Amino acid sequence: MSYLNNDTCPKYRISKFQDNLLERFQTIRSRTETVCKPLPIEDYVVQPQDFVSPPKWHLGHTTWFFETMILLPYFKGYKVFNANYNYIFNSYYETVGVRVIRTDRGNLSRPSVEDIYLYRKYINEAMLQFFQKEMSKDVSVLFELGLQHEQQHQELLMTDIKYILGNNPLFPPYIENKNSEIAPAKTSKWISVKEGVYEIGFKGDGFCFDNELNRHKVYLSAYQIASELVTNQEYLAFINDGGYEKFRNWHAEGWDWIQNQKAKAPMYWYFIEKEWHNYTLNGLQPIDWNAPVTHINFYEAFAFASWAKKRLPTEAEWEVANDQFNWGKRWEWTQSAYLPYPGFTTADDATGEYNGKFMVNQMVLRGASVVTAEHHSRPTYRNFFQTNLQWQFTGIRLAQ
Amino acid sequence: MSYLNNDTCPKYRISKFQDNLLERFQTIRSRTETVCKPLPIEDYVVQPQDFVSPPKWHLGHTTWFFETMILLPYFKGYKVFNANYNYIFNSYYETVGVRVIRTDRGNLSRPSVEDIYLYRKYINEAMLQFFQKEMSKDVSVLFELGLQHEQQHQELLMTDIKYILGNNPLFPPYIENKNSEIAPAKTSKWISVKEGVYEIGFKGDGFCFDNELNRHKVYLSAYQIASELVTNQEYLAFINDGGYEKFRNWHAEGWDWIQNQKAKAPMYWYFIEKEWHNYTLNGLQPIDWNAPVTHINFYEAFAFASWAKKRLPTEAEWEVANDQFNWGKRWEWTQSAYLPYPGFTTADDATGEYNGKFMVNQMVLRGASVVTAEHHSRPTYRNFFQTNLQWQFTGIRLAQ
Amino acid sequence: MSYLNNDTCPKYRISKFQDNLLERFQTIRSRTETVCKPLPIEDYVVQPQDFVSPPKWHLGHTTWFFETMILLPYFKGYKVFNANYNYIFNSYYETVGVRVIRTDRGNLSRPSVEDIYLYRKYINEAMLQFFQKEMSKDVSVLFELGLQHEQQHQELLMTDIKYILGNNPLFPPYIENKNSEIAPAKTSKWISVKEGVYEIGFKGDGFCFDNELNRHKVYLSAYQIASELVTNQEYLAFINDGGYEKFRNWHAEGWDWIQNQKAKAPMYWYFIEKEWHNYTLNGLQPIDWNAPVTHINFYEAFAFASWAKKRLPTEAEWEVANDQFNWGKRWEWTQSAYLPYPGFTTADDATGEYNGKFMVNQMVLRGASVVTAEHHSRPTYRNFFQTNLQWQFTGIRLAQ
Amino acid sequence: MSYLNNDTCPKYRISKFQDNLLERFQTIRSRTETVCKPLPIEDYVVQPQDFVSPPKWHLGHTTWFFETMILLPYFKGYKVFNANYNYIFNSYYETVGVRVIRTDRGNLSRPSVEDIYLYRKYINEAMLQFFQKEMSKDVSVLFELGLQHEQQHQELLMTDIKYILGNNPLFPPYIENKNSEIAPAKTSKWISVKEGVYEIGFKGDGFCFDNELNRHKVYLSAYQIASELVTNQEYLAFINDGGYEKFRNWHAEGWDWIQNQKAKAPMYWYFIEKEWHNYTLNGLQPIDWNAPVTHINFYEAFAFASWAKKRLPTEAEWEVANDQFNWGKRWEWTQSAYLPYPGFTTADDATGEYNGKFMVNQMVLRGASVVTAEHHSRPTYRNFFQTNLQWQFTGIRLAQ
Repeated sequence: MSYLNNDTCPKYRISKFQDNLLERFQTIRSRTETVCKPLPIEDYVVQPQDFVSPPKWHLGHTTWFFETMILLPYFKGYKVFNANYNYIFNSYYETVGVRVIRTDRGNLSRPSVEDIYLYRKYINEAMLQFFQKEMSKDVSVLFELGLQHEQQHQELLMTDIKYILGNNPLFPPYIENKNSEIAPAKTSKWISVKEGVYEIGFKGDGFCFDNELNRHKVYLSAYQIASELVTNQEYLAFINDGGYEKFRNWHAEGWDWIQNQKAKAPMYWYFIEKEWHNYTLNGLQPIDWNAPVTHINFYEAFAFASWAKKRLPTEAEWEVANDQFNWGKRWEWTQSAYLPYPGFTTADDATGEYNGKFMVNQMVLRGASVVTAEHHSRPTYRNFFQTNLQWQFTGIRLAQ
Repeated sequence: MSYLNNDTCPKYRISKFQDNLLERFQTIRSRTETVCKPLPIEDYVVQPQDFVSPPKWHLGHTTWFFETMILLPYFKGYKVFNANYNYIFNSYYETVGVRVIRTDRGNLSRPSVEDIYLYRKYINEAMLQFFQKEMSKDVSVLFELGLQHEQQHQELLMTDIKYILGNNPLFPPYIENKNSEIAPAKTSKWISVKEGVYEIGFKGDGFCFDNELNRHKVYLSAYQIASELVTNQEYLAFINDGGYEKFRNWHAEGWDWIQNQKAKAPMYWYFIEKEWHNYTLNGLQPIDWNAPVTHINFYEAFAFASWAKKRLPTEAEWEVANDQFNWGKRWEWTQSAYLPYPGFTTADDATGEYNGKFMVNQMVLRGASVVTAEHHSRPTYRNFFQTNLQWQFTGIRLAQ
Repeated sequence: MSYLNNDTCPKYRISKFQDNLLERFQTIRSRTETVCKPLPIEDYVVQPQDFVSPPKWHLGHTTWFFETMILLPYFKGYKVFNANYNYIFNSYYETVGVRVIRTDRGNLSRPSVEDIYLYRKYINEAMLQFFQKEMSKDVSVLFELGLQHEQQHQELLMTDIKYILGNNPLFPPYIENKNSEIAPAKTSKWISVKEGVYEIGFKGDGFCFDNELNRHKVYLSAYQIASELVTNQEYLAFINDGGYEKFRNWHAEGWDWIQNQKAKAPMYWYFIEKEWHNYTLNGLQPIDWNAPVTHINFYEAFAFASWAKKRLPTEAEWEVANDQFNWGKRWEWTQSAYLPYPGFTTADDATGEYNGKFMVNQMVLRGASVVTAEHHSRPTYRNFFQTNLQWQFTGIRLAQ
Repeated sequence: MSYLNNDTCPKYRISKFQDNLLERFQTIRSRTETVCKPLPIEDYVVQPQDFVSPPKWHLGHTTWFFETMILLPYFKGYKVFNANYNYIFNSYYETVGVRVIRTDRGNLSRPSVEDIYLYRKYINEAMLQFFQKEMSKDVSVLFELGLQHEQQHQELLMTDIKYILGNNPLFPPYIENKNSEIAPAKTSKWISVKEGVYEIGFKGDGFCFDNELNRHKVYLSAYQIASELVTNQEYLAFINDGGYEKFRNWHAEGWDWIQNQKAKAPMYWYFIEKEWHNYTLNGLQPIDWNAPVTHINFYEAFAFASWAKKRLPTEAEWEVANDQFNWGKRWEWTQSAYLPYPGFTTADDATGEYNGKFMVNQMVLRGASVVTAEHHSRPTYRNFFQTNLQWQFTGIRLAQ
């Protein structure tokens, strides 16, 4: 199924069913537009990096999903909005011959933003009609999947907007927030977990993705995990100790990344007039030193941990201890590679076709971030990204 | 001087002075905005190729020219519109340290189009005030140069707009023109010129660029030059004879270009449902076979001429015979490399600093095109582009 | 320590000590030269790919190791053979300023092969003198490490020689072996292992690398592992079923690799006159269908397993069951990412400095290959390579 | 014809006939081997840059020429030496399907150097037999062409050998010449030429290439040309005046070349222990300041001339004045692009097929160099190279 096949397109499959679909449909669809509301039209169009998609593409692609997965196959008499849109908003390139090349998304001035909003309206209305008439159980599953899919794109939309604005020399804020607070200082404590056989993976009734299955046993040696995330202050100590200049704490690949990118600090950090600033959704600001460090990639998370004589937790360690610390403001890098759980199998139908395809050369992140849609994540949720990417809201929790 | 240093930025220098500056200022500045009028905001933003600039950049850059070259140095008390704009709209990168990388132009969603129009208004008003008060002869020269510069960008603006729209899968027209006419069939005749010593290069009172100087003598062997440009019909015969598949008529570099680009026809030609179409400013249309072929690069012009057992004229041959044929609808590739005329010298001041810097690995084009600003070209005008570029309105006139 | 820092340079650290160092030194050093004996001088020089090193570089680099790690710091009065050789044969580039860029190795015609053999002789004699006089326990460890290092390079030397000859259009054999036998047909059986807590990792007295430590407990669900490796015949069925043409069984990254490389079969397979051949050390030969498939990368191993509705074993599954099947003729891809074992720590001295640096974006291989030095591998040995590399002798053992 | 189609393969066509073919065949063929005599086998194999060919390729390719152009089509009963050699030694890739990619030449360890010398011997003997029996006038032309071709490769062979040795960190000399002399100081004078119509191009009976034809009239303004080439001393003044750091004197393309290459001096110049050295065929030496500067590309020649407030001569200016100065030790960059002479036509047979294909984006050099084969050049000879290449023996003569 095509929505699965793109590295910034969410990559999961529904396994269980949820209620209140229509209400949630309206809320979630509307929220995507709310996210875009502060943007002038120009911001919808650009794609400054391959891994970023233009906001207007997100708006169209999440809509295309409902049209292609539900309306076209299941809604009798449905009339396609514009036959070219399949080509333009389809991120699935493996089995569809003619396709916009991904890096070209930022070159497409048309369809206009106005046309895409009309498209959204048209599909929303068709979905409403369809929902009221003839939705079966099978389609409900796709419906739920479409909602999860759109929530995941909402997060990407926010991180892409931040990238677009935060790499513009004018550093425009996303929204001016006069009352932004300074984070209070907190002291991290070590939470101890005993060795033993534990169970991880999804259990219960709600929705989960298939990469959270099967629930299975793991043997963990005794370990400790930090109650708090690493702060900007702590990360600055690493920088000031020559963190980006000494090979010793880095993976060989990470060191190459530093050389190629001339990296010296997390993404969005700027040293201006002898003071560190970072770009936030609120514009360029002096760094809030007590706040958790963010926009670091796996190489940086690993190097920091090595420098601190600690390590990152495995995803099993994180999951087993997750109810003993606060999480949810930053995706947390683990030292686990993104691999199938024991007993992981792929369904025979289309939705199961490609579940394993991202399970190589990516690392697992656990938690959620400030821009994750509400109720979207959970303790067993497995997010994953390549080791060089910084543009998500990512953080570091240490273990030992 | 910085406006000179960019391969899609006009590259010339004024040598003589013209009248009616203020009136021409208003007309020319206004025309730039008229060119952009049909565009929705999205079209102002994108940069699908390195050699294309976003329309909003052209709007800003031509304005920045007047601010930086005239208002800042000569208008006492002038207050800069926005200090960041120098960084954003400056195409001159050699001696200015901090600069937007050229390929990044399409990533800059801000300043917004609205802000750029405000910038234009602000500068137009300041120029008006300045003009009425204190313009000296020296500044008049820069004034004229700014107008020539803006006219050259008007042409680039049109060719860039065509590229942006003509490479969009929706093929939106720039303006719908219901009454477009089909070109009538014409028969080309051979115009004969006797051997002898001729003079070429600018003479007279008006404005010219320094690459048109010195006027000098050349010895020409007897030659013939075609009265008409090569038509689409004639070019199709070349294509159908395997023109793009046989090495024989191509430069080695041209053949490499074919392989890399998988070129099979001029830019904007599309073979759809067994018929050749091309993208025009009026949208995708069946090809008008009697019209001159256009959007071919030097390699293609040369290969066609070789295939036809003819050759391209030299720029001297073209200039000597130019009053015996009609020209002005297409820039015409010559077989002359862009090199200095005898006695060409560079002025000591800033405007003369970089005049020779493009005189390598480019070929001369003579004439003018349908999107050249009125009164901008003349028989001695020397346009020039790299041999692989197709996005200008270029054509072929044969010689023998 | 510098020998650790190169992706085709062995990457391990000694933890325990072994006997008979001098005798083993002579045997192992001599074997490296024996490996090169069949080569004309031209074969010592070339580097057809970045991941391949010229044989003469291997000869020099393994020698440089003993000179730099032992003779220079510990052998009083030792006189360096040639000061430039440190620059030429040092694969350690992170902390040494001036260095031959890796991809340049194939451009260095000098030092000549003859000079490198003189260098080996000089170092062997110096090591012999040193050994007889003053070797301490500390140096013994480095001595052992040098031998392990040279053994690992012997394997790389063989795989690099195969690459050099197998990509030459003349397909010269490494040695003609008239009596090569055809592999007999074998039937693979499923070996069953019960669920439970198992221990993996090195235990005992001999030598091991630190990535084999700590020995630790793992919980394994019940599984089955194949008694035999996948054969060429079985792999051909995958190819013939459109294995390289259908996206379904591949990782997204693997699919990109296919498109970029136009991959259609394992490395060294050539379809000649309607029959499959492969290049072997014995020259170009019709494929031996009962033999295990080899020279496949991780993507191919994974895709084959998916196509067969099976999976690769984890490294723990492989290790726990390793005494129930034969292994040692092919490195076997596992589905385990190369990551630190629980309790893995890095030593404070130089040899421990960089142990973790390869533990990202590589997969573990278990076993040994036909070109691994005798007694070099063991059941707990962890080999690892990037997922796109095919030039090692790699194979597939299925699990379920 | 295939020998024409490679940028380091000579690119000309014979137009007239010469005597003493057999004697010259033996002398010239033998000289190629003499050039290679000082090299150990390793030096024959490597290709450090795309524009360099391994010496063993030159040995094979010049031999392949005689086999393919003469023996195979004209010598009845001739038996090909090795059918694979056509593939390996053919630089003509446009119409031959299967071919070694150019950049791969340095990866081919086989055929061995010994085998290539056997090939040369075999072809020499076959040519001798053929010559004595049945050579017609037609074949004589090809014979002459093969000799000119081999002479041109002798020059490339020397420049390639210099590149191979001069980029090796051991800087091995090609031959040790104890008695190398220091160039005496000379003062350049200005030679004045009056304006008028002159004739240039080949005339007379001997051999010439078709790019020297037709002899034709040119009109030259009065000019002066220097009697001596620019010296290392003079070029050093340019460097010391910030020549490579100031944009002002460079073409825009030249400036890009500086940035990409981090160029700071001519090729082979090394600043070692506070003194300038350059690599010569005699090894690394302190620079001989009175000697002409060499190994500079067109960008550098142009920038130097601009800096000196002079210019390069056109090729017509050079040719008209050539009998008034000494030349022959350095190819001299002109400011003429390599373009067809008036009346240039291509022959209908194979040898004329591709004559124009290099006539784009290259500049003409006049003269000859210290490594040009004796009697190979003449006053009308037009050599040409791309503007970024430095590895030929190139120099600067100023004009004004």
